[in-house]
Amino acid sequence: MTGNSLDRHMPLYAQRTAGMRASAVRSLFAVANRPEVVSLAGGMPYLQSLPLESVAAEAAQLIAQDGLTALQYGSGQGILELREQICQVMALEGITAHPDDVTVTVGSQMALDLVTRIFCDPGDVILAEAPSYVGALTTFASYQAKVVHIEMDSDGLIPSAVSAAIESVRAAGGRIKFLYTIPNFHNPAGVTMSDARRQELAKICREANIPILEDNPYGLLGFDDKIRRSIRADDAENVIYLGSFSKTFAPGLRVGWVLAPHAVREKLVLANESATLNPPVFNQMMVSRYLANFDWQSQVKAYRHTYAERRDAMIQALETHMPEGTTWTNPEGGFFVWVTLPEGFDTAAMLPRAVTARVAYVPGTAFYADGLGSRQMRLSFCFPTPERIVEGIRRLATVLDNELDVMRTFGATTAALPAYKANRGPSSPSPDIY
Amino acid sequence: MTGNSLDRHMPLYAQRTAGMRASAVRSLFAVANRPEVVSLAGGMPYLQSLPLESVAAEAAQLIAQDGLTALQYGSGQGILELREQICQVMALEGITAHPDDVTVTVGSQMALDLVTRIFCDPGDVILAEAPSYVGALTTFASYQAKVVHIEMDSDGLIPSAVSAAIESVRAAGGRIKFLYTIPNFHNPAGVTMSDARRQELAKICREANIPILEDNPYGLLGFDDKIRRSIRADDAENVIYLGSFSKTFAPGLRVGWVLAPHAVREKLVLANESATLNPPVFNQMMVSRYLANFDWQSQVKAYRHTYAERRDAMIQALETHMPEGTTWTNPEGGFFVWVTLPEGFDTAAMLPRAVTARVAYVPGTAFYADGLGSRQMRLSFCFPTPERIVEGIRRLATVLDNELDVMRTFGATTAALPAYKANRGPSSPSPDIY
Repeated sequence: MTGNSLDRHMPLYAQRTAGMRASAVRSLFAVANRPEVVSLAGGMPYLQSLPLESVAAEAAQLIAQDGLTALQYGSGQGILELREQICQVMALEGITAHPDDVTVTVGSQMALDLVTRIFCDPGDVILAEAPSYVGALTTFASYQAKVVHIEMDSDGLIPSAVSAAIESVRAAGGRIKFLYTIPNFHNPAGVTMSDARRQELAKICREANIPILEDNPYGLLGFDDKIRRSIRADDAENVIYLGSFSKTFAPGLRVGWVLAPHAVREKLVLANESATLNPPVFNQMMVSRYLANFDWQSQVKAYRHTYAERRDAMIQALETHMPEGTTWTNPEGGFFVWVTLPEGFDTAAMLPRAVTARVAYVPGTAFYADGLGSRQMRLSFCFPTPERIVEGIRRLATVLDNELDVMRTFGATTAALPAYKANRGPSSPSPDIY
Repeated sequence: MTGNSLDRHMPLYAQRTAGMRASAVRSLFAVANRPEVVSLAGGMPYLQSLPLESVAAEAAQLIAQDGLTALQYGSGQGILELREQICQVMALEGITAHPDDVTVTVGSQMALDLVTRIFCDPGDVILAEAPSYVGALTTFASYQAKVVHIEMDSDGLIPSAVSAAIESVRAAGGRIKFLYTIPNFHNPAGVTMSDARRQELAKICREANIPILEDNPYGLLGFDDKIRRSIRADDAENVIYLGSFSKTFAPGLRVGWVLAPHAVREKLVLANESATLNPPVFNQMMVSRYLANFDWQSQVKAYRHTYAERRDAMIQALETHMPEGTTWTNPEGGFFVWVTLPEGFDTAAMLPRAVTARVAYVPGTAFYADGLGSRQMRLSFCFPTPERIVEGIRRLATVLDNELDVMRTFGATTAALPAYKANRGPSSPSPDIY
């Protein structure tokens, strides 16, 4: 995608830069953002229920009262008051933590970047679910780490598969640096790891001396109003925990965090300073005020209610409209449903036709480092209204029916549009596919 | 500083992590921030003259009117309106640029990180002024790049020294990836590159196919109210330009940018997305509104007046109080004076005694990758009032006089406090030494 014979800097790029490429579907998403298209692609939270007038007043007060601090440089670790509040938020998931072990980051994406930065040399191996979060895969690729995907079922990562992967990677001389997992309401798979699996996974990784990178942006968005106990709650030494305010408050402030064992935390702060000097102080103080002065837990409950309704609309529409042989996950929380189409479909090849039919999704290949996922797609129910979701699934069903017609007549369509098969595997996450 | 035998993750860290270390002087700066200490160390802009009430009202309006955009995910390149305004800001320095070639970053520190990320493999060489910005040296080290310092005089980088460095690095098989320079009101050296030197430098680098990384945070802070023409203004193909709103508006929002040739810009956006998904949208829209709705150029003029007065106070106090043989630069703008003490002084070893005498500075060694700078110190005049600056210099002079007494009696003091000599070269920039 990038670079051409006119780029005089071509001989100067780092080796890692060769792995950075724009998604082939990126240009399609520009079209997908038109209002007439129902986008089931984006992972944007539905902010409409935020009390904007009160948040506005809070921002004004913050600048008027504390502007000289909020608008100034700050600490590379993040402000203490927010780190204390973050510990209270994590306590909801059973975590006991000290604010000194928390580092505030520019969204948890920056935390992913920093953790990878301090652990991974080129060629190092990261274990991750199959499929996995596209933004993590992109970051891992940017540090030239190799991702080995591990099978999941409806209870999350399969422990025997984890053990087998560790053994085979090590037998082949691979250096495993950590295991990356999203235990709750997985992006994109929509499944949640069972409690028993969490214990097993923690034990396997502890014994193998492989840290677990537990990424938990959706943890408070369980539709049954229950909060799952985090892996970190039972293993403070071997788990690095990533959290975010993007889904519980607002992604536009880019405030996330990482909780890590002390020696790791020391390195994370240095890496944070090297990357940004410090996360924006205004944004941290704003989140801190939001947590202190708003009934944020009721707001999260309202989000849960909104998203649960949309999940229901999507699942019901899938049941009504999907062709035979199609399967999907039924998430207990979060934003995403993972759909597997029957043999012969190619979701990447089909995307332009879907967008033409005014519905968008993310092809499954985006979520694999190894080229799998061609029959899968991620559908998100977080942003469109239930009515729009139903309409989107109806349009998608029409596209699938047309594909089936073509397949019955001419065979599988995969070869039809090679342009959209060119860039398999992770590529830079556009805003549409967070 | 970091890591110890209790760190179970020690065998898992990346090679680059070995180069990340906390500054030995960091703990001293915690003391230096006490109100009784005159800190001439920090590079914090003096925000007191910002119209906080109006900025507060603007923030409230932004959230009330555009909150659903400002608080949402955004583009990895940054919002278009701000990129257009950034082009207008750069036009003041003679730059003609298209908004499509601008990438907004989390402060220009993140831009430094991204540029290094896409260009530098371990062992690659970056040419930089001697001394150079500590935050850049830290970032370069975090990517395992090797810095080769090049001599400056009062007109900035010496062209013949640049040519000689290129030749000798290449003769030794070194791969030079770019030349990093702060042409205006250098941090820490306080000198400004002459127009003739800019032309010469651009020509040398263009012919050697070495991109110039022009870092210009202080460009609008010239005390003579003149705006120097940027190097980028006369070379759009071989210069990557870094800008920042930290000194013209507010560092707490962390909004900077990079202007790069198109092919490089494409890679920067991908790297930006991999690092943070996108820079905070709220912060970008806030800066955009500030530029659109405030008389920001008059505000910058007020800053210039404030800083010029403080520079004058510092220079006069240095003339009055410094011991014979001490020299210093007399900056035409920016924040910093670079002081060279007579033979025998060691500014790192002396710092604890200075802090005890209630004055702080940054030892010169922080600004070199190669251990030089032991007789130098950076004094900043941006934050304390003129009265405090004069008092600080008076205290510093007392410390120097005491050192001289000891040296006359016992010889040089350098061996006296080895703890403060341990960590030479760049180390993580604490907020106190930006």
